[in-house]
Amino acid sequence: MTDRPDTPLLDRVTLPSDLKTLSDRELRQLADELRTETISAVSVTGGHLGAGLGVVELTVALHAVFDAPRDKIIWDVGHQCYPHKILTGRRDRIRTLRSGGGLAGFTKRAESPFDPFGAGHSSTSISAALGFAVARDLGGDPGDAIAVIGDGAMSAGMAYEALNNAGHLGKRLIVILNDNEMSIAPPVGAMSSYLTRLYTGGPFQELKAAAKGAVGMLPEALQEGARRAKEMLKGMAVGGTLFEELGFSYIGPVDGHDMEQLLPLLRTVKARASGPVLIHAVTRKGKGYAPAENAADRGHATSKFDVVTGVQAKAKSNAPSYTSVFARALIDQAGRDDRIVGITAAMPDGTGLKQFAERFPRRSFDVGIAEQHAVTFAAGLAAGGMKPFCAIYSTFLQRGYDQVVHDVAVQGLPVRFAIDRAGLVGQDGPTHAGAYDIGFLANLPGFVVMAAADEAELVHMVATAAAHDDGPIAFRFPRGEGAGVEMPARGRVLTIGKGRIVREGSGVVLLSLGTRLAPALEAAEALAARGIRPTVADARFAKPLDRDLILKLAQDHEALITLEEGAVGGFGSHVAQLLAEEGVFDRGLKFRSMVLPDRFVDHDAPFAMYDVSALNARHIEAKVLDVLGIERLADLRA
Amino acid sequence: MTDRPDTPLLDRVTLPSDLKTLSDRELRQLADELRTETISAVSVTGGHLGAGLGVVELTVALHAVFDAPRDKIIWDVGHQCYPHKILTGRRDRIRTLRSGGGLAGFTKRAESPFDPFGAGHSSTSISAALGFAVARDLGGDPGDAIAVIGDGAMSAGMAYEALNNAGHLGKRLIVILNDNEMSIAPPVGAMSSYLTRLYTGGPFQELKAAAKGAVGMLPEALQEGARRAKEMLKGMAVGGTLFEELGFSYIGPVDGHDMEQLLPLLRTVKARASGPVLIHAVTRKGKGYAPAENAADRGHATSKFDVVTGVQAKAKSNAPSYTSVFARALIDQAGRDDRIVGITAAMPDGTGLKQFAERFPRRSFDVGIAEQHAVTFAAGLAAGGMKPFCAIYSTFLQRGYDQVVHDVAVQGLPVRFAIDRAGLVGQDGPTHAGAYDIGFLANLPGFVVMAAADEAELVHMVATAAAHDDGPIAFRFPRGEGAGVEMPARGRVLTIGKGRIVREGSGVVLLSLGTRLAPALEAAEALAARGIRPTVADARFAKPLDRDLILKLAQDHEALITLEEGAVGGFGSHVAQLLAEEGVFDRGLKFRSMVLPDRFVDHDAPFAMYDVSALNARHIEAKVLDVLGIERLADLRA
Repeated sequence: MTDRPDTPLLDRVTLPSDLKTLSDRELRQLADELRTETISAVSVTGGHLGAGLGVVELTVALHAVFDAPRDKIIWDVGHQCYPHKILTGRRDRIRTLRSGGGLAGFTKRAESPFDPFGAGHSSTSISAALGFAVARDLGGDPGDAIAVIGDGAMSAGMAYEALNNAGHLGKRLIVILNDNEMSIAPPVGAMSSYLTRLYTGGPFQELKAAAKGAVGMLPEALQEGARRAKEMLKGMAVGGTLFEELGFSYIGPVDGHDMEQLLPLLRTVKARASGPVLIHAVTRKGKGYAPAENAADRGHATSKFDVVTGVQAKAKSNAPSYTSVFARALIDQAGRDDRIVGITAAMPDGTGLKQFAERFPRRSFDVGIAEQHAVTFAAGLAAGGMKPFCAIYSTFLQRGYDQVVHDVAVQGLPVRFAIDRAGLVGQDGPTHAGAYDIGFLANLPGFVVMAAADEAELVHMVATAAAHDDGPIAFRFPRGEGAGVEMPARGRVLTIGKGRIVREGSGVVLLSLGTRLAPALEAAEALAARGIRPTVADARFAKPLDRDLILKLAQDHEALITLEEGAVGGFGSHVAQLLAEEGVFDRGLKFRSMVLPDRFVDHDAPFAMYDVSALNARHIEAKVLDVLGIERLADLRA
Repeated sequence: MTDRPDTPLLDRVTLPSDLKTLSDRELRQLADELRTETISAVSVTGGHLGAGLGVVELTVALHAVFDAPRDKIIWDVGHQCYPHKILTGRRDRIRTLRSGGGLAGFTKRAESPFDPFGAGHSSTSISAALGFAVARDLGGDPGDAIAVIGDGAMSAGMAYEALNNAGHLGKRLIVILNDNEMSIAPPVGAMSSYLTRLYTGGPFQELKAAAKGAVGMLPEALQEGARRAKEMLKGMAVGGTLFEELGFSYIGPVDGHDMEQLLPLLRTVKARASGPVLIHAVTRKGKGYAPAENAADRGHATSKFDVVTGVQAKAKSNAPSYTSVFARALIDQAGRDDRIVGITAAMPDGTGLKQFAERFPRRSFDVGIAEQHAVTFAAGLAAGGMKPFCAIYSTFLQRGYDQVVHDVAVQGLPVRFAIDRAGLVGQDGPTHAGAYDIGFLANLPGFVVMAAADEAELVHMVATAAAHDDGPIAFRFPRGEGAGVEMPARGRVLTIGKGRIVREGSGVVLLSLGTRLAPALEAAEALAARGIRPTVADARFAKPLDRDLILKLAQDHEALITLEEGAVGGFGSHVAQLLAEEGVFDRGLKFRSMVLPDRFVDHDAPFAMYDVSALNARHIEAKVLDVLGIERLADLRA
């Protein structure tokens, strides 16, 4: 247990309104205390550290100058919101961050009126803020709308769409570009280079207020003869013209850690802005905590750690993570096939593409937070004769769905989708759940959709995808560690559309897709003690279905239960459609489909989330007993 | 029948290679003949006219300078490709455009090697071209990659994502910005204003080659002392700096109808480009055909017409279109509730939002081709207290799917989705099919998903959506005319999750969602003649399901058949899940779910497409007979 830091000023703050009585000097001290408290809290909870530390001063300055919750402060992604949560009535729960029943790791409307718009995914804040601004001007909720968005998030087309629309509408709207040269990984793309050019060559010696109107928004003290003004008002070689061209008044770059710059600037913008304003604040991710500042990822996400040394608690690891298994398998395939290329949308670490890139730098592409482009770029690569592996989390693939349909599926192009974080994902909660990919892919004509039951299966599926050149193919696998099974030396190409029986039994068959196979086997083991011996099968493919196997299993058993880590409309629904069309239901079959529940499951440990979802071994066991009429499921629910 | 135009030069051209022997003077003549032939062809087929006429010179110049299919010419959206099809071996079929079995109205890989990447949706071309360019440099297919993209398409985030990535990678890539100040509707947004500024004030008097490298790409004749060079090389007040900042060499604006500018420019770019180049060509939609040039939409899409007068064949209209019914119903609601706002993503005509905008200009928002932003902007409006109606075609809503999940559903915000063009859409074919929305919306917790059985139902659903403030709600309706039913004076708020029985019967129940109700009734009528009297019900809601009604129907009938204009994973799958969970299948139920088939259905008349999909009245009738064991469905298939 770490000692709590000494925070005399912060102890006097419960709500942002408490900041109104503090002097600028006190606000500076408050920022220091807020930083210490943030570090202390994350040291016991783990979570996103670096991003929050980078916006401590910005958080204090925004709450000192604006009036939340009347003014809407919208944190893009939301993972930088811990200091904001501490200042907005949630300090007493800050050490419950990301744990079951505790505070969410992102902003969340249901949690606080100070979170006007929740997030988790990137680049939504400008659209949302524009919505608030327009609503206000039409007589809806009053107050300013302020989006705080990182430079990484600016690589997403959605942010551009919002800027384009906001510049056109001309409503009063404040966008703070929090430029820390770092999203999760170093940002990529031409926009990132552009932003860097805006402040290289003597940072903060010069402050540019682009466009005539913007000059008037510089604080008086900075406009007139004072020393700082002289420093800050010099014209720059590279201005904020890109944002100007899109209709914004550009002000910056400003030192996002310097309260002497931030406070007067925000006050003046608040007093004078009439249209859309973009304030370019340069910050440092992990600012003020050496272990974070010195880390390669600037302390992006951390386990619990020792505050003094920065040493993180080691997670007990029994098996390799699915991500690393995928990366190794892809590297193995690519070593023997130079047509294989890897694509990630700003998640080289999370997807394992970083390891691939180290080995095959020319064949690795990080396109930025740009899933739409990632998918169609992959389609172009496939049309050009390559074998693209597009590695995108299930939840983020939703961003590229139209491209999956229109550019990949309709054209039947052999793009390989490696879908990490499929199913429930733990501490990141409902915004990051990979619940829908089976459904939204398996209904696309010509798609092959696989789910790995364990890490050895994943290796085979990478090999299968590499070999499959007839059309699109996807394989999904969960977050976290594998099951610890024996690993094959090399992946084996699976027969498309063929499942396997894992445990022979009778009476009832558990037909699993993906990693619910383990709890299914566990349930079968428990049931065996009661004389019930279910057959357990691994479907491997949600599409095409193994018709012969499924119809045979249906014929040979009294009951058939499908299992998957996805919402209704996916694997179980396709099985039901097959059974219906073949008339299997006509003569009666005890059919059940265990899927994710029709609710968003709050963040918790994955096992606990599956418990809430009634998808753990005990639920499977109970479902079998219920279906067989041996015991009412209701007993378990009680 | 219109006489065929006299086209002596065009008659000598079968493939683009035939252009290599023509002089520049002949190429100019060829362009004139190609324009005449395009007008003649569309006069008998109907289709997209204006966009093709705007790129006639560009088409000839590209094929004269580059070497397709080795060089990949990628037409964004693809609706401007008729002249391209005429020059690439498809002139003999050009008068079959968009009709069953005929040429597609867009580019299509399956149709010709000269269509390297198909389209239909906007803004994909730069991503695809970059894929080809990268594949080429990695040893894949050789040749140049050329994207031709309209200014309207540049409002999409996807185009920005692709520019951002292309500028970063620095590969040789040619993007031709076909700036006609007009997509389907006048383009909106700050980018559009920026592009206009690039060439206002003396069009084509000055040609700017931004960035040092680009100057070297100007044709020699234009670089040196010649008259045109003097005109064209003057610096401009507003340059192409936005594209430069993103890493492109900018050349333009060039007159896209002037072969004397286009040919030397393209030749020089072909000879000298080393990185990404953007050529800004200014064109006029509908160019060279007065009736199109003078039309409000510049002849965007047309029925068959008389070439001399431009008068279009009037479609026989028996009933109002669903789109116009929606527009009128929304206007009616908005007249009584000033919190209602309308949002369209660049489809004011197609969605009926234009009528709404005429009546309520302050409450109407055309955000550009920007579905991602449209959805989250609507979520922000809802959070700010408004009642946003987000009117997006089913197929385009795929572009905003993540935003639907993450910003609307997870937060439970009351955004109303008006989903036009649900189901099969006719001549636009598989790229525009609205096949997946039921599935991808109905599995989202808290969503209400409705489908209108006819135009009167649509009016009620608009009223229901306006009244529903508890969370997200969607209603879908098809392309085309209503059924001609009697219209209510005003919409009535439906009870959420309640269906209705339309025709009482016994034995078998046809449970329809959406406009398959009409063929279901037709089938019931036909069956009655054989003594079979199915119950016919309209579910109205895919979510929440009318549990009581469905379970009662299942209990009271021997067979239950669901009907919908969507893929598996939607309404029928939700019904199956309910029946399974309630143990209905345990005791046997002849359950079938009639859905769109597992294939992409080629363009044709909608009735013909539903015929191929086995979803017309005769298929429903046959399915009933089959389920009841009276007649084998196979007989019908044969």
